Amino acid sequence: MSAPHVDRIRRANEEASRRGLDAVVVSPSPDLAYLTGYDPMPLERPTLLVLRPERDPALLVPELERPLAAASPMGKHLDLVPWLDGADPYEAVASLLDGAARVAVADRLWASHLMGLQRALPGASFSPASAVLGRLRSVKDASELEVLRRAARAADETFREILAMSFEGRSEEAVAHDLAELLVRHGHAKAEFTIVASGPHAASPHHEPGGRTILPRDAVVMDFGGELGGYFSDTTRTVVVVEAPEGFPQAYEAVQEAQAAAVDAVRPGVRAEEIDRVARAVIEAAGYGERFIHRTGHGIGLELHEPPYMVEGDGTVLEPRMTFSVEPGVYVEGRFGIRIEDIVAVSQDGVERLNRSTRDLQVVA
Amino acid sequence: MSAPHVDRIRRANEEASRRGLDAVVVSPSPDLAYLTGYDPMPLERPTLLVLRPERDPALLVPELERPLAAASPMGKHLDLVPWLDGADPYEAVASLLDGAARVAVADRLWASHLMGLQRALPGASFSPASAVLGRLRSVKDASELEVLRRAARAADETFREILAMSFEGRSEEAVAHDLAELLVRHGHAKAEFTIVASGPHAASPHHEPGGRTILPRDAVVMDFGGELGGYFSDTTRTVVVVEAPEGFPQAYEAVQEAQAAAVDAVRPGVRAEEIDRVARAVIEAAGYGERFIHRTGHGIGLELHEPPYMVEGDGTVLEPRMTFSVEPGVYVEGRFGIRIEDIVAVSQDGVERLNRSTRDLQVVA
Repeated sequence: MSAPHVDRIRRANEEASRRGLDAVVVSPSPDLAYLTGYDPMPLERPTLLVLRPERDPALLVPELERPLAAASPMGKHLDLVPWLDGADPYEAVASLLDGAARVAVADRLWASHLMGLQRALPGASFSPASAVLGRLRSVKDASELEVLRRAARAADETFREILAMSFEGRSEEAVAHDLAELLVRHGHAKAEFTIVASGPHAASPHHEPGGRTILPRDAVVMDFGGELGGYFSDTTRTVVVVEAPEGFPQAYEAVQEAQAAAVDAVRPGVRAEEIDRVARAVIEAAGYGERFIHRTGHGIGLELHEPPYMVEGDGTVLEPRMTFSVEPGVYVEGRFGIRIEDIVAVSQDGVERLNRSTRDLQVVA
Repeated sequence: MSAPHVDRIRRANEEASRRGLDAVVVSPSPDLAYLTGYDPMPLERPTLLVLRPERDPALLVPELERPLAAASPMGKHLDLVPWLDGADPYEAVASLLDGAARVAVADRLWASHLMGLQRALPGASFSPASAVLGRLRSVKDASELEVLRRAARAADETFREILAMSFEGRSEEAVAHDLAELLVRHGHAKAEFTIVASGPHAASPHHEPGGRTILPRDAVVMDFGGELGGYFSDTTRTVVVVEAPEGFPQAYEAVQEAQAAAVDAVRPGVRAEEIDRVARAVIEAAGYGERFIHRTGHGIGLELHEPPYMVEGDGTVLEPRMTFSVEPGVYVEGRFGIRIEDIVAVSQDGVERLNRSTRDLQVVA
């Protein structure tokens, strides 16, 4: 059970040393779950893993959660440092960090805790631990990849079944509810999000499904996913009800072509930002450049969004077993929106699509 | 709909001015929901409300979530400042904060975002916004109090019904599952946590319920709660199966007496830490002082744990309509644990118990 965690902590320390960091401090978050298998709720009482190259890892833990931490997968490999309510936990971390000048902290650490550390260690400089941990977590091992495949297949089944249900005359909320049920029925522990954006609402990429009745000639963007075995699915398909609205088919074709071209561009050695450029070039050439208002994709794993990001400025060089979304979109205010999203994995010499449900335009009833 | 939010933002600005702060920066969190009614998922793409006394509030928002923010309760009262993927959002916030030297940031802001702000505003000093917002949020208005009463009643009903179910021979997980179902059946939108800690496990205050079979002479600590109308319930009761284990009744009596004394001590003008002292004195006098390993309570509202804290060092002066838990406990390693927890509200001249299910020792089958 603890084997992957021991190795992950070792690699985190190596990567930290390579970057000239003296310590990495990790709070309850997917980073902590990845490194130790311990995944308590983040709270105002800090729990903090302190990694220092050449030293044993230590876990500062509230006294009342000491038994919980001790029983966790890495409990026997960590120096547990309990603190009692009313004491200053940041001073305790400062002791553990004694002499550390360059400290990386988990991206999701709460600001209140970072400010506590900054107060207790006025001479230290702090930076985001994603530089170390994002890098490690972005490359999945074989078992992580298998869980992501299962999550993607469950999302694909969800899409196939929702196509057979009725859309016209029902509310976005009702369809969203169906998607959530299907995600769970196909193996997700829980549905995390089910965007159903119809007609003009589809022009809002992160639309919150509401009471709007779905009508003929609506395009409907469905962006849905959940958690399965600790890992996420995240898929988007856009369908039309009865028939496509005016101007829609050309835009859909551009998005479909952009998505295909971007996926085809995925292979080891290519930079993440290049995937964004490929998708954007197709959509710009089709005349919709101004309407593609977000990046092309994001890494996925223990977090729904994690490094690398398919966006201009992310120079991450793709490696085998990195997993991320490819999801270009076009949004025409007041009329319609389109997004097509698959999760892919970088393979030894190209790409593996984890989602395989059809991307051809589907007409629903 | 937006009326409470306009007033809350006004009061946040007043409180910030009083404390000599130039700005308050709030990320997606209960703080943002409280101030604006907008409650998106916290993500790596920052969404940041910028409050500055004497200026209109501004909301930095990712371009793809602009329509969502615009449609939120305060959408029309906020200057929306969209940023596109690939741009530097922290520079945009720095412009909004132009000249601000003392900036408070939401306690739950991610460290990665705080470090982004610190980089963009090297001359500014940062502090936790709980000094401003915790104060405001701790005093509930009439409608918040009513929702908290409903949540507490639903938790009380959950406890009453679980007493009639069987414990002996079932697993902790099975009882936890029943608690979660009952919470939802009695009106919670979702169960947030259901600690069921039996026998020696009960000595671990935040025990994760597992496969252990519940046996006769086990004490079972059940700490459960969920979200109802955006607010939380949080109740703990300890029962014994068939009969009490050795040494238990005396310890239970001490905890019950400590809880009653602490609740009786609640009234306007008393300091939060005094409630902790009252509970601790009773438990110490009974000889269990070393085994009461946590604070006596925490504020509750839009967050499960929020200021004030009933702990030595929290000098908050209690005011009418503050709501918090009173939950002393005694934990005897390897043998049993006991905790009794109710949510209370400070009334005009004393205290209102929101939880009213019996605190007398219940024997279950």
